[in-house]
Amino acid sequence: MKNKVITIARQYGSGGREIGEKLAKKLHIPFHDKNIIERIVKEKGYSPEILEQFDERKSQSLLFSLAMNSYGNWYANDDYRPLQAAILKAQADVIKIMALNPCVIIGRAADSILDSDECISIFVKASDENRIDRIMKRQGCSEAEAEKAMKSTDKDRARFYQYYSDKKWGSAKTYDITVDSGVLGIDKTVELLMFYMNLLEK
Amino acid sequence: MKNKVITIARQYGSGGREIGEKLAKKLHIPFHDKNIIERIVKEKGYSPEILEQFDERKSQSLLFSLAMNSYGNWYANDDYRPLQAAILKAQADVIKIMALNPCVIIGRAADSILDSDECISIFVKASDENRIDRIMKRQGCSEAEAEKAMKSTDKDRARFYQYYSDKKWGSAKTYDITVDSGVLGIDKTVELLMFYMNLLEK
Repeated sequence: MKNKVITIARQYGSGGREIGEKLAKKLHIPFHDKNIIERIVKEKGYSPEILEQFDERKSQSLLFSLAMNSYGNWYANDDYRPLQAAILKAQADVIKIMALNPCVIIGRAADSILDSDECISIFVKASDENRIDRIMKRQGCSEAEAEKAMKSTDKDRARFYQYYSDKKWGSAKTYDITVDSGVLGIDKTVELLMFYMNLLEK
Repeated sequence: MKNKVITIARQYGSGGREIGEKLAKKLHIPFHDKNIIERIVKEKGYSPEILEQFDERKSQSLLFSLAMNSYGNWYANDDYRPLQAAILKAQADVIKIMALNPCVIIGRAADSILDSDECISIFVKASDENRIDRIMKRQGCSEAEAEKAMKSTDKDRARFYQYYSDKKWGSAKTYDITVDSGVLGIDKTVELLMFYMNLLEK
């Protein structure tokens, strides 16, 4: 039986984060998301040693990107390559340490950083219509803006995943289970995943 | 709530067929697989009218391919294009008729032939190791032969799917739920899918 480390990858707007939070709560285990990167930058102190290689503007725009959780292209930009490698390596290290204990980790290519027998890997998706609707409600934006954000964020997530892995983000092959949260709704998706987890333990 | 038409696409050697049979049995609904093609050829009588356009050898090799369920390249071969179109159209028609009543349909791109709200679309996968092991046991063949069959059959299935659909065979995006039968085992995968079906009805 796998250690109860649950990784959740998700299409933007699919509610994967909310599902992860609810799972963690039901399982009484910690929930980790973008604070991973903040921990790396803050606790592991990469800023002073490495950031000095870069001029202030570049560093600031990078830190801004990190803080805003908008990967954009920074990790594919030659100017940032050494910094990128250091940060992504540190991020992978933090994920590996987190995974020593049961937890839920959202995004960050965690399933590809961990061995497949170290985690239960989940992918959450929903139809474009369903996601656009959710994004509009959450951000209070127009349909066109929601669609644009959806497409570009998914592209970024797939690209980010490719940095770590030969496997494909969003391919059924990559995960233990994938589920459409739009068909089931958030709470029933949580219920299904709890049932799945119990089956694994039986 | 969706009509209980369940389509199962599956990686070769993942046990998807066995899972489909068990689901159909538990749900007391019919199970359809490659006999679909046989029905088309036999009941809809495409052979006399259309096959006469082709010389005997070509027809025979095609019928042999169909009978052997080895799609190979016949549907991508220019010589067979008119016949191909007729047979695939007939196949789609049969699937649509079948889907008027609850049933389980294995493969045949059924999920892309039906509207997404007409069926519950499932994809079954497993690790390569797991599948090679299953194929070796089932066929009594060598590891190398099992690996070759696994890769070529998956390629054929993906290519066949592409004939009908813009969606991608094996992408989480394409299905309502995908599951690794190697992680859970066949019976627990059936149990999970039964639970899923019940959640959809609640």
